[in-house]
Amino acid sequence: MAPLADVQTLTGEQDTWSVYTKTRSTVQEQPLSKDELDKYTRYFHASMYLCLGMLYLKENPLLQEPLKKEHIKPRLLGHWGSDAGQSFTYIHFNRLIKKYDLDAFVISGPGHGAPGLISNFYLEGVYSEVYPNKSEDAEGMQRFFKQFSFPGGIGSHMTPETPGSIHEGGELGYSLSHAFGAVFDHPQTIALTIVGDGESETGPLATSWHSNKFLNPITDGAVLPVLHLNGYKINNPTVLARISEEELRSLMIGYGWKPYFVEGSDLESMHQAMASTLEVCVQEILKYQKEARESGKAVRPRWPMIVLRSPKGWTAPREVEGHYLEGFWRAHQIPLTKVLTDPEQMKQLESWMRGYKPDQLFTKEGKLITELKELAPAGNKRMSANPITNGGILRRPLKIQRFEEYGLKVDKPGVTSGPSMNHFAEFLRDIVRDNQTTFRVMGPDETESNKLSAIYSAGKKVWVNGYLPEDEDGGNLNPKGRVMEMLSEHTVEGWLEGYILSGRHGLLNSYEPFIHIIDSMVNQHAKWIEKCLEVSWRQAVSSLNILLTSTVWRQDHNGFTHQDPGFLDVIINKSPEVVRIYLPPDGNCLLSTMNHCFKSTNYVNVIVADKQNHLQYLNMDDAITHCTKGVGVWNWASNDAGKEPDLVMASCGDVVTQEALAATALLRHHLPELKIRFVNVVDLFKLIPNGYHPHGLKDAEYSALFTDNKPVVFNFHSYPWLVHRLTYNRPGQERLHVRGYKEKGNINTPLELAIRNEADRFSLAILAIDGLKERLGNKGGDVREKLIGERIKARNHAYEVGLDPQDLTDWTWPY
Amino acid sequence: MAPLADVQTLTGEQDTWSVYTKTRSTVQEQPLSKDELDKYTRYFHASMYLCLGMLYLKENPLLQEPLKKEHIKPRLLGHWGSDAGQSFTYIHFNRLIKKYDLDAFVISGPGHGAPGLISNFYLEGVYSEVYPNKSEDAEGMQRFFKQFSFPGGIGSHMTPETPGSIHEGGELGYSLSHAFGAVFDHPQTIALTIVGDGESETGPLATSWHSNKFLNPITDGAVLPVLHLNGYKINNPTVLARISEEELRSLMIGYGWKPYFVEGSDLESMHQAMASTLEVCVQEILKYQKEARESGKAVRPRWPMIVLRSPKGWTAPREVEGHYLEGFWRAHQIPLTKVLTDPEQMKQLESWMRGYKPDQLFTKEGKLITELKELAPAGNKRMSANPITNGGILRRPLKIQRFEEYGLKVDKPGVTSGPSMNHFAEFLRDIVRDNQTTFRVMGPDETESNKLSAIYSAGKKVWVNGYLPEDEDGGNLNPKGRVMEMLSEHTVEGWLEGYILSGRHGLLNSYEPFIHIIDSMVNQHAKWIEKCLEVSWRQAVSSLNILLTSTVWRQDHNGFTHQDPGFLDVIINKSPEVVRIYLPPDGNCLLSTMNHCFKSTNYVNVIVADKQNHLQYLNMDDAITHCTKGVGVWNWASNDAGKEPDLVMASCGDVVTQEALAATALLRHHLPELKIRFVNVVDLFKLIPNGYHPHGLKDAEYSALFTDNKPVVFNFHSYPWLVHRLTYNRPGQERLHVRGYKEKGNINTPLELAIRNEADRFSLAILAIDGLKERLGNKGGDVREKLIGERIKARNHAYEVGLDPQDLTDWTWPY
Repeated sequence: MAPLADVQTLTGEQDTWSVYTKTRSTVQEQPLSKDELDKYTRYFHASMYLCLGMLYLKENPLLQEPLKKEHIKPRLLGHWGSDAGQSFTYIHFNRLIKKYDLDAFVISGPGHGAPGLISNFYLEGVYSEVYPNKSEDAEGMQRFFKQFSFPGGIGSHMTPETPGSIHEGGELGYSLSHAFGAVFDHPQTIALTIVGDGESETGPLATSWHSNKFLNPITDGAVLPVLHLNGYKINNPTVLARISEEELRSLMIGYGWKPYFVEGSDLESMHQAMASTLEVCVQEILKYQKEARESGKAVRPRWPMIVLRSPKGWTAPREVEGHYLEGFWRAHQIPLTKVLTDPEQMKQLESWMRGYKPDQLFTKEGKLITELKELAPAGNKRMSANPITNGGILRRPLKIQRFEEYGLKVDKPGVTSGPSMNHFAEFLRDIVRDNQTTFRVMGPDETESNKLSAIYSAGKKVWVNGYLPEDEDGGNLNPKGRVMEMLSEHTVEGWLEGYILSGRHGLLNSYEPFIHIIDSMVNQHAKWIEKCLEVSWRQAVSSLNILLTSTVWRQDHNGFTHQDPGFLDVIINKSPEVVRIYLPPDGNCLLSTMNHCFKSTNYVNVIVADKQNHLQYLNMDDAITHCTKGVGVWNWASNDAGKEPDLVMASCGDVVTQEALAATALLRHHLPELKIRFVNVVDLFKLIPNGYHPHGLKDAEYSALFTDNKPVVFNFHSYPWLVHRLTYNRPGQERLHVRGYKEKGNINTPLELAIRNEADRFSLAILAIDGLKERLGNKGGDVREKLIGERIKARNHAYEVGLDPQDLTDWTWPY
Repeated sequence: MAPLADVQTLTGEQDTWSVYTKTRSTVQEQPLSKDELDKYTRYFHASMYLCLGMLYLKENPLLQEPLKKEHIKPRLLGHWGSDAGQSFTYIHFNRLIKKYDLDAFVISGPGHGAPGLISNFYLEGVYSEVYPNKSEDAEGMQRFFKQFSFPGGIGSHMTPETPGSIHEGGELGYSLSHAFGAVFDHPQTIALTIVGDGESETGPLATSWHSNKFLNPITDGAVLPVLHLNGYKINNPTVLARISEEELRSLMIGYGWKPYFVEGSDLESMHQAMASTLEVCVQEILKYQKEARESGKAVRPRWPMIVLRSPKGWTAPREVEGHYLEGFWRAHQIPLTKVLTDPEQMKQLESWMRGYKPDQLFTKEGKLITELKELAPAGNKRMSANPITNGGILRRPLKIQRFEEYGLKVDKPGVTSGPSMNHFAEFLRDIVRDNQTTFRVMGPDETESNKLSAIYSAGKKVWVNGYLPEDEDGGNLNPKGRVMEMLSEHTVEGWLEGYILSGRHGLLNSYEPFIHIIDSMVNQHAKWIEKCLEVSWRQAVSSLNILLTSTVWRQDHNGFTHQDPGFLDVIINKSPEVVRIYLPPDGNCLLSTMNHCFKSTNYVNVIVADKQNHLQYLNMDDAITHCTKGVGVWNWASNDAGKEPDLVMASCGDVVTQEALAATALLRHHLPELKIRFVNVVDLFKLIPNGYHPHGLKDAEYSALFTDNKPVVFNFHSYPWLVHRLTYNRPGQERLHVRGYKEKGNINTPLELAIRNEADRFSLAILAIDGLKERLGNKGGDVREKLIGERIKARNHAYEVGLDPQDLTDWTWPY
């Protein structure tokens, strides 16, 4: 098998070394005695044996009788490829936990490959403690095997059902950001983080190496990444496994790490290499932490990391039927695929499994023998038992001031404009102040732009990456900061997820349009939480709070790329037990909503609120009442006197609420005989029928607000169809006319943007008149014409003069 | 301003150098004569003058009278920060285009900052050629200034309205992947790619540096990245601007590039540094290309790249009112913010603009003086006139075989199972074969898993990153490949966008659940296309074809993280002119659909089709008829004999169509007196009312299929509410019962997963019976009980035996 004729790599230092020749290691010490070597090999084999058991067996777990077809699972599922490398790393880190009394836990980046770690969790007893029927005996082992990738059982990732996990890895790319999130403000903790070389190709992972610029060695713990160069993805070599060692070393140095290499396939020398290298890394971490903590200097050292190059599917047969297995992508999933139909493969599997000598590893009853058992740490020092991995245990409620104290003064609804976001920022500032080690604010470089800079007086922006004199000129940077900003929505979201899952609190603030960048991450987090709800021993964690601001209606000037309120369409499909969506219409409602969200657990709360000055409607008492109900009639804006109205004007969102009110005022001015009820929705899920979501109104409650037979004009913040999706089976759907962002925009003024989408005051009033055509007759037609004229005038004004970011907001409620 | 007391960086080589001291450059040549130096300075100043004009002026473009308030735009918008660095780079590359007769275009990564390039496009005349009323005179310049960031005008990115652009940069992170996509199979082209240091923090950008491992120097062009270390984002320093030079150099080497540094603020020495460095880079590119092309060896050299470190807001005043402006984040947007209200600032602006000496740069009429004009290339050598940037000009129709030849033989509907995806793969293989330089298949390591591996016989997977002997064992790698796989949805999507926008064709295939990773990218592409439709000179480009497979219903075994069909909810909100969604129910429909998509232009086509074997329903003729209509009655599955049925059973999607058919069969078996009509939807937008989308059925057409008053049971591939969102104002909404994925899943068998979501045969039949309760009476109740029993049995079977990936598919149509 010669290289292809016309192919050649030319990347500086050529690297023709094969993993199957001599083991290579940066560190050359040989810390293990012969006896230890033997024990670690057997422990590793016990783990590998369990991995194969999980993939293949439903009966005969200890191979106490010859392997037969009826012992094999009818459908073979699971991944073998990265199991060995992950287990190998875990086992060797156990040694150091014992030796240095470390507080550590593990993150498994490579997705499918969980058996490598789950097998260890079982060997060290945690699995059986958490699931007593998966006991440390033959019967328990049989159940442990059978449940793997089996209906009603556990998946082949580190799912929520698996103790010791805060990172599933179903979707790849977030191992490092989760690890960093979990060790921030946990100064004693080390996150042993196995990074897959497949995962390493993802964007989120590629940039998350830079997280080290945001880690304070005094107040934060440490992340020890082990980049596992397994060599292959599903069907391809990985990029990082095929670049020269010079490039790989440079890459890690470039990311700010100090790389150590451990490479080979020979077990004994690999044991020595891994044991010594991990130990050097731990010593460096402890040294840097000690230096920083004793000197009080928050430095960024080149933290150590390890490149572990081992064969894909390590310890499997190298060749099967003339094709490479170990060391090739064919070892990615089930290594022998025809066991059920091919007696030869069945024999091969049996002799492979027996090659690990299970009878010498486990007692006759099926328990790991004592001398191996002792290799693992005890109690909560076992990584799978670290409370961080069930963060709700550590979580303490947030210390939170009375949000009412931060309110805006509202004497009369709709006549004063005020900075909703700035008031919230003061509330947030004091939360930061009062929870200096348990609350962080994350965002992609937009906290200031989003008008939240008040918090800097309680916590600056974390920066451990070089300072210049001009930073003193309002830079607001400090290694002890509480605000974390990197222009990577993926990284800040990953940090926050890790921070929350390990028992703390936080907030992500982002421009609304670009939150779509992390659609998939938030999806996955919602799925994680949903499954945690089904796992009885998982304690509740803080909600993931996402504040969306710089919203579509004020992205007039940034143009079409910045106009996308569709994140709600993604969130709304997630499990109703988990997701919550709020659109507070003004500052006091924002405060009340955020207070609720910060105190809640196990939700994904999405809050949409613009950052610009806005009309204020409700005083604090009314805001609390309104937000507690989640939806309500605004009597001050209604003239139906509590009776049946002619028309319901409804709104959900801040800018659109103002336009709906302005439309109401136009109608009342031009058509004073009309009885209009004004309804505002804060809690979007109120619209969905009760039963579909815990917040859903009963039909009678819905009708009491929206009537049974009167036209409803509903001005919605986001894409209008979402309201129809929520209300399609409500009474009176055919009378419900929803307006919202209809993907019409470019460079606009705010009012002109609303007009383009027919969500402006004029269009809404016209829509109402159209809905009341028969009742209003000619008079309605006259008003309609007039309003169309005003709308044209407003639009032309924008095109001609181009001024007036305030063209939308220079309006107050006239009644 | 001393460094903060407790702050220190410790990152190896310390780097206290300031951009304001001596210019530093890797290359030390001084290629420019004194006269050239002077000309380049003046050309640069002309560009800077235009940038300020765009930000500030609506009148008095040449400052022929003293600057007054009425000359200034009423709302100041736009970004100054990166303008100078971008313009500087562009101007110097122009010199090399002329000297080496290069074919080049520019990509601007830094988002807002477009004035730096747009000013150049105006100076070299292209802007006026494309927009004659923005002529090269005072009047044209005034219009050119006024339209910038003005309602009805152009945005502050490189929007579709801007000639010379295929990359807007509204959402950051895709400059490099777009650049690579555009030069693949364009061997003569160089993409000068300005990468922002803010953008560099995003995940997508961070991994896209690795694109060099997929570039063939023989058949592809080259990308020359200029990483512009501007220093600051909106309110923060950038990560890369604050690491040591050693780390930055290592990072670029680690990514496989050869970095050249050009750093400083002194214009004259910077001119020499940039001119010489760019020239060395161009020479290296040409040398590597020549070597590869002459030798026939597809090597990966360390392609050159440049780190350009220049002050943010370069050439602005360094300090304003005691605060840093140039060289600090305050220069990010409008540099002098109070010009309209502060006469001092107005004066400052005027003297700043006059400092560029516009009267010596432009003729009295307002045209750039001839001696400067000559610095730019001519005709299509001007980067803003390169046809690549209006790719439709270059686009040739795909050579495509008759898709009918690849069909599956279907003698009788619903009785034979067949590999739909494999047949499509053969069609695709021949497209690859027949369009070897104009068609590529992209995917994140899943082409084989997605059953498309037949294409490897016409085009292997591109790999220019080191080979091992085992690659001969089915590796399917080749530097000349036509399939591109990297485990980064972002990168492969970016490549495909760049490839299409520069005039070629392609397909992205992906697992359905993880396509959410690129929600935001696809959103942005759809927005780009939508705006292109409004720009008369933009020629149509090929559609972006996204094939989603490994779909939710067969992700039973991978678990909850792999179950998410919600991409459609994102796509459906985009402009109806642009988006199309197809769910072909079987293999022949898949062929017909894909054939249509490949021939289409200016769409985002999303096609959802599972990769497993599926029942086949339609022979080729029927499939063509069905797909052409997009929705239709399947008479063979109906027993209403073309008359009014008792029930309509409808489906959209492959797995769910089978279950709907199985439910129909159950109903016909148990309740033979029921008249059932079976309707299948291929083209999802058929459901929306005509007028909302060009494909939408008229209400009469809709009623002719779904009746006016009969119950409809609709089994939908994705989240069921999407169908309600599309049909909420159709007649008979209250009789429409939709089933689909309701976010219920874990480790399942396919049938058990369907049962969990009530999208299985039993649940659908029960739903139908419930809808016909009055008509069916007791008999319905009996059947209902029976079906509930069968459903329980099927579910228990999964939990007990766990076998049978085929439990769903071991079924055929019995009539």
